[in-house]
Amino acid sequence: MTTDLLAETAALMAIPSLSHHEGALADHIDARLRAAPWLEVTRIGANVIARTTGNRPGRIILAGHLDTVPADGNATPRIEGDTLWGLGAADMKSGLAVNLHLATTVEDPATEVTYVFYAAEEVAREHNGLLAVAAARPDLLAGDVAILGEPTNAGVEAGCQGVVKLGVTLVGRRAHTARPWMGTNAVHRLAPLLTKVGEWQDRRPVIDGCQYRESVQVVAVEGGVAANVVPDRASIVLSFRYAPDRTAAEATGVAQDLVGAGLDPARGDRVDVIDLAPAAPPGLTHPVLAGLVAATHVPPRAKLGWTDVAFFTERGTPAVNLGPGDPEVAHGANERVERRDLDAVLGCLEQLLATPLG
Amino acid sequence: MTTDLLAETAALMAIPSLSHHEGALADHIDARLRAAPWLEVTRIGANVIARTTGNRPGRIILAGHLDTVPADGNATPRIEGDTLWGLGAADMKSGLAVNLHLATTVEDPATEVTYVFYAAEEVAREHNGLLAVAAARPDLLAGDVAILGEPTNAGVEAGCQGVVKLGVTLVGRRAHTARPWMGTNAVHRLAPLLTKVGEWQDRRPVIDGCQYRESVQVVAVEGGVAANVVPDRASIVLSFRYAPDRTAAEATGVAQDLVGAGLDPARGDRVDVIDLAPAAPPGLTHPVLAGLVAATHVPPRAKLGWTDVAFFTERGTPAVNLGPGDPEVAHGANERVERRDLDAVLGCLEQLLATPLG
Repeated sequence: MTTDLLAETAALMAIPSLSHHEGALADHIDARLRAAPWLEVTRIGANVIARTTGNRPGRIILAGHLDTVPADGNATPRIEGDTLWGLGAADMKSGLAVNLHLATTVEDPATEVTYVFYAAEEVAREHNGLLAVAAARPDLLAGDVAILGEPTNAGVEAGCQGVVKLGVTLVGRRAHTARPWMGTNAVHRLAPLLTKVGEWQDRRPVIDGCQYRESVQVVAVEGGVAANVVPDRASIVLSFRYAPDRTAAEATGVAQDLVGAGLDPARGDRVDVIDLAPAAPPGLTHPVLAGLVAATHVPPRAKLGWTDVAFFTERGTPAVNLGPGDPEVAHGANERVERRDLDAVLGCLEQLLATPLG
Repeated sequence: MTTDLLAETAALMAIPSLSHHEGALADHIDARLRAAPWLEVTRIGANVIARTTGNRPGRIILAGHLDTVPADGNATPRIEGDTLWGLGAADMKSGLAVNLHLATTVEDPATEVTYVFYAAEEVAREHNGLLAVAAARPDLLAGDVAILGEPTNAGVEAGCQGVVKLGVTLVGRRAHTARPWMGTNAVHRLAPLLTKVGEWQDRRPVIDGCQYRESVQVVAVEGGVAANVVPDRASIVLSFRYAPDRTAAEATGVAQDLVGAGLDPARGDRVDVIDLAPAAPPGLTHPVLAGLVAATHVPPRAKLGWTDVAFFTERGTPAVNLGPGDPEVAHGANERVERRDLDAVLGCLEQLLATPLG
């Protein structure tokens, strides 16, 4: 194989695509796909769907999101030997590069294939591009199995954890800072809540041989009125990642219990569920996915992050994550991907697309 | 006296004057003052200074700030019987109303008088209008004693506490929230710091018979990168109000020690002094101020808030606070002033201006 997927990934990284700003990258991919005469390409907003439309048995969906989180001093891609550094290297322009390469080179797959490039995965679920596509053209998302190109170190990561996000507002009473005893400082009231979240002991259930690991993180904090005023409002956003042995309702209850002890409804404190993304069980009993696991030559692992595996699982389409790059460096300043991961994932997927379904 | 000072105060409250937006109120007062032919009026930005310019012995400065903190649902003034409710009722449009009334009615005082209406007292000291006046026309601020119309329940509040504001930034390391153990949550790191500030035991020194009361408050908190990212920065602004038996340098050290234990410079944590306003000792030995205390018929108390008493004291002009309204309701939703306070302060100051100096 002479394709330089590392360079292809760097080229995609050079087109910034912060969530809600994926238009330029969607344009680029759209144009590349339309050059392949065996694909039918549909554009819906910043989402691009390309499909083979023959009469082969079965349909495989290869999907990946276009957007990235904000840069952390790593906006510019940089190749050092066989390592590509920078925002999106792992999550997930490398996965996009593999899918784009397959879409534009595999002219006659053994099954039908749908390539999905979609927007706004790294933000609140309501913005997720798959929802927009499902609303406008649900037929484009039909398939027998789905493979998400999220970073998994080129091994299958099965299922995904769910996410509950709570907005928590603590209420105090304003006063002049020279006489704070006349008021109640809502920011000071955060202390026991932050302590409790920081001390939370994670749970690590094993499901179908895959170990999940839950986590609770405060991802935002805000409070303050003016320099001389005791603040009467302080708020946090709490993110709870939960394993797929819990329902979304159960997970919401766990998160609410965690913050609830520090709240006083009589003061006006409140908790709102601001985002809720379902978990998905591993789903490795499907023969195509079991075959994919075998092709990777590594044992399947649990997917700890939320991915759109949950979206496809909810719709009755078994799905797994398989992509280049280490998920542990995603969203960090040292995000990177190795050439061997790109080649390994490409190899597995080429084999998958060369194998007739069932 | 037939003047309705409560209505006069309400009229000034009806002209919003949030810090840095005092122009309309300055215009109104400027026009009122220019109608009094015995005054020489000077406008410097949003600051208005009116002076008598005869040859009477001595000069008394009556000063007050035009600005208010943000409204807390109380932007509209409301009179109920002899009580006026709303933003600025106490701090300090009632004091301004008294000074404006004196300026426009006391045509022939026994001493020279300087009336100072100035901007931006409720924000960081660098913006304080007195500094702008002192830079442009220091001669306008010369005088034998100064009386600030800050709320004091119509009794003399002597001296003032100083303020040290620290900006504290805690540093973590970004990671995907599904794998928070790869990073460090800077918001979680706030917990011990907020706990320590909340548990701080205040100190209440007695100086010249006046009891001060120190306080420490977090007035702002901020942190967060994106919904799926472990935040690598969290910051607070800490306000330390200190008694006048400490120097500014000593107070800065106390505040830095308080936050210092929770900081790790190796991570990049930092503390910056972002505002420093000096304290002022009581200064009641000056005969004019001692006479003013006697005229109020109540014992002098310590001023807990910072006021520009410190500005005048630093320049060698003894100064005290005397104004209508309860300082304990300033900056709060239930801010108000009573008619009897307005009349009492007006009476004291009329007596002061009718008494030859020395």
